[in-house]
Amino acid sequence: MFGFSFGNRKAKTAQTAKERLQILLAHERGDGSSNPDFLPMLQREILEVIRRHMQIDGDAVDIRMERGDERSSLEINIDLPGAGSISSVPRR
Amino acid sequence: MFGFSFGNRKAKTAQTAKERLQILLAHERGDGSSNPDFLPMLQREILEVIRRHMQIDGDAVDIRMERGDERSSLEINIDLPGAGSISSVPRR
Repeated sequence: MFGFSFGNRKAKTAQTAKERLQILLAHERGDGSSNPDFLPMLQREILEVIRRHMQIDGDAVDIRMERGDERSSLEINIDLPGAGSISSVPRR
Repeated sequence: MFGFSFGNRKAKTAQTAKERLQILLAHERGDGSSNPDFLPMLQREILEVIRRHMQIDGDAVDIRMERGDERSSLEINIDLPGAGSISSVPRR
């Protein structure tokens, strides 16, 4: 349907592989759909969800978006901070 | 990094292509990370985000998860209801 793959953004370097989270979103709107492009809002809200569970620096987040008439896609790559940084309980 | 692709889940049928949202999440934890598997929580919260913007039937959501020692991945496929069903303003 969307035909792009995660692929190897960076080959696994000699030092211990960093912890990473990758999110791919694709919204295929079909012919003549009048629905708005949903991804920009989804991007904001997903990053909010993640930030509730861990501290992420701005420069650790890499976002790429492609927008077409019938289909838009969004790739979010996040280099995660070290061990013990993810809490399964939201930070308040 | 994760090496799987969206791919064509269902070839485009003769009738108008349905509107779809696909979400792929991959969490690569690196060697010896003590961080918890983050994807089950992310799955719940992302579905909550989406449901705030549109009505989705349970059977319109297809979820596949793969869990490994160093890497887990999650694929969420959502067949979206017809035109005009997505609101860019959250439903209360």
